[in-house]
Amino acid sequence: MESGPPGGSGPAEPGPRLRGLRGADAAASASSLSRFGAEAGCRAPAVAAVLPAGGSGERMGVPTPKQFCPILERPLISYTLQALERVSWIKDIIVAVTGENMETMKGIIQRYQHKRISLVEAGVTRHRSIFNGLKALAEDQPNCRLSKPEVVIIHDAVRPFVEEDVLLKVVTAAQEHGASGAIRPLVSTVISPSADSYLDHSLERARYRASEMPQAFLFDVIYEAYQQCSDYDLEFGTECLHLALKYSHIKAKLVEGSPDLWKVTYKRDLYAAESIIKERISQKVCVVMDTKEDEEHVGHCLEEMLKTELNVHFLDYQSVPFGQKMEKVMQIREFAKEVKKRNILLSGLLIYFPQVENNRGLEEQKLRESLRQGVTIIAALIKERNSGLIGQLLVA
Amino acid sequence: MESGPPGGSGPAEPGPRLRGLRGADAAASASSLSRFGAEAGCRAPAVAAVLPAGGSGERMGVPTPKQFCPILERPLISYTLQALERVSWIKDIIVAVTGENMETMKGIIQRYQHKRISLVEAGVTRHRSIFNGLKALAEDQPNCRLSKPEVVIIHDAVRPFVEEDVLLKVVTAAQEHGASGAIRPLVSTVISPSADSYLDHSLERARYRASEMPQAFLFDVIYEAYQQCSDYDLEFGTECLHLALKYSHIKAKLVEGSPDLWKVTYKRDLYAAESIIKERISQKVCVVMDTKEDEEHVGHCLEEMLKTELNVHFLDYQSVPFGQKMEKVMQIREFAKEVKKRNILLSGLLIYFPQVENNRGLEEQKLRESLRQGVTIIAALIKERNSGLIGQLLVA
Repeated sequence: MESGPPGGSGPAEPGPRLRGLRGADAAASASSLSRFGAEAGCRAPAVAAVLPAGGSGERMGVPTPKQFCPILERPLISYTLQALERVSWIKDIIVAVTGENMETMKGIIQRYQHKRISLVEAGVTRHRSIFNGLKALAEDQPNCRLSKPEVVIIHDAVRPFVEEDVLLKVVTAAQEHGASGAIRPLVSTVISPSADSYLDHSLERARYRASEMPQAFLFDVIYEAYQQCSDYDLEFGTECLHLALKYSHIKAKLVEGSPDLWKVTYKRDLYAAESIIKERISQKVCVVMDTKEDEEHVGHCLEEMLKTELNVHFLDYQSVPFGQKMEKVMQIREFAKEVKKRNILLSGLLIYFPQVENNRGLEEQKLRESLRQGVTIIAALIKERNSGLIGQLLVA
Repeated sequence: MESGPPGGSGPAEPGPRLRGLRGADAAASASSLSRFGAEAGCRAPAVAAVLPAGGSGERMGVPTPKQFCPILERPLISYTLQALERVSWIKDIIVAVTGENMETMKGIIQRYQHKRISLVEAGVTRHRSIFNGLKALAEDQPNCRLSKPEVVIIHDAVRPFVEEDVLLKVVTAAQEHGASGAIRPLVSTVISPSADSYLDHSLERARYRASEMPQAFLFDVIYEAYQQCSDYDLEFGTECLHLALKYSHIKAKLVEGSPDLWKVTYKRDLYAAESIIKERISQKVCVVMDTKEDEEHVGHCLEEMLKTELNVHFLDYQSVPFGQKMEKVMQIREFAKEVKKRNILLSGLLIYFPQVENNRGLEEQKLRESLRQGVTIIAALIKERNSGLIGQLLVA
């Protein structure tokens, strides 16, 4: 009987970062700015974004407003801000929060080092919050610290999975047509009830769409609409595209969005968001091996199996002789606590396999069984990303 | 230094079973049948249910039709069938599946021991599948094996969280008004695009509702509507309530449903469903202790902390002297594999705490720290319910 190498596994990133599935990284941002010219025949506009984040989240059934609900210990709104910050051509991001959440929001900005953010006080309705955000960008306001953009994006704090691709589409369309918004097919048929709750009529599902976010507007178009609109609109309205149509006579260009644009509304949406974020950040795994030289093939086998069975984008393993440090269970746990501060979730894994004399075939088979078990354990740890299990020495 | 009791934790149920949050168990079913008389002033009708399950799930972006996607290793449709079977007054459940999935469906019925299920061949559209289900219940068809119900429920295979409460409401309303359906507020504003993808008009969100499932009909009302409706309706229609209105001139009574009624449509919905199911089945936990007599208070402390920090509905612990069996890590793993067959997920937990001479206070403090760590680990195991981690000996 021989015991193999303990290894550590866990996504190694300084803070959970959303990885755009379609590669919305810095390089893409730089190139897409020039795409403004190539694709839409117009120059790159100055762009700002306004995020109303004054909601109380009553539909969630939890006391914390949904934009502040933690997902993997980080507030939802921080993921959304990160998604917008990734896009280098968005110059300013205005977030409207209620007075009572102002300090919370400041703390989030500081803790997650968000840049280009300005805070304004939210209004009592969504439209009033957006209006406050626009006022902060308008040059006609006193004490205006920001410069007026040509195009303004309006997005929801609770739609964290927005990609640069769709932002570019709505901004380009807004520059050309004055207003634009993302739409999605309807999931349910929409019906009109009578006052006494009987079916009055149902709408033909194929002829309608759900209006989602992001939306984008020429700043003057939407600001003028908000300045003109009625108190009734500000109190009960839900649709910025409607205001642009009604008061600025601009028919918005509609853009098909991806399913990822959905709004976190109910508790189940938090679950879904958590799973999506886990899936994305789990693609970075670091396996550190502690093998004797004559067992190096164990490492190769594990690497090969991991690559086959997991959707691991990045994989590295090294033979590091830190057996001394890892010797005892308690030491692994101390080490795990230490690296947890850098958001690395570390676990120990002992690959157990017997040496069978005069039967290399059987020995190899036993090893592969153990490694397969190891891959299952690593996959479980990666999938769940539960920090309650860090520092344990698991046995495969 | 002294090592404490290994324990086992994991939901102990023969197959994941949905627990109705509002207690839709057998006793409730029996009493609600009599509520038909008390609440609606009418006798209990004969009720059947039709589930169209012929969809291809193309919106999910996975090859398996969504109703057959596994959640905790069990197909989604099986949870929905279980939710309907719990309701004793639903006499027959007709499921419409495509020819190619017929054997899969038979396998699911056998494996999860579903009762009162009849299978019919799905049509190429949702309406055609429902129509096939209704034909199987109609007495005017040759080879009819089922008896015609007074009221028929139509539900989706991909809405697993339907509660008896809303089923009772739609059935009662259908008995009185001819047709009834569950509705929900709209999450997004609905807009009408022009042919060239510009905004034509937006609907006032408050005046419309999303039509959800379940729906219920007097059998003759909906069967007559399907017999009369056009090929266009059968091909492109999405709404049974609309057919009842158009062809049987019945205005459906609309009933407010809970957020749980949502339809599993996208991959994120599968994630959400998995988390909800985990949350529900996780409420049964069994902690088995192996303590020496003088450490019995360790068990009491753990029980107390678990009850405070977890939403554990059922908790039992026993002092069982099976230290011999649990002695070695490998033995726990063998035992865990064995009980996994009965869907019990077992892990070992070693509570580590030092004996401090002449300082009972410090000793107590150390013990409580370890127990708190233990509770975190138990909570992580319960929340994730990942069978990849069974049989491990974890250390708190």
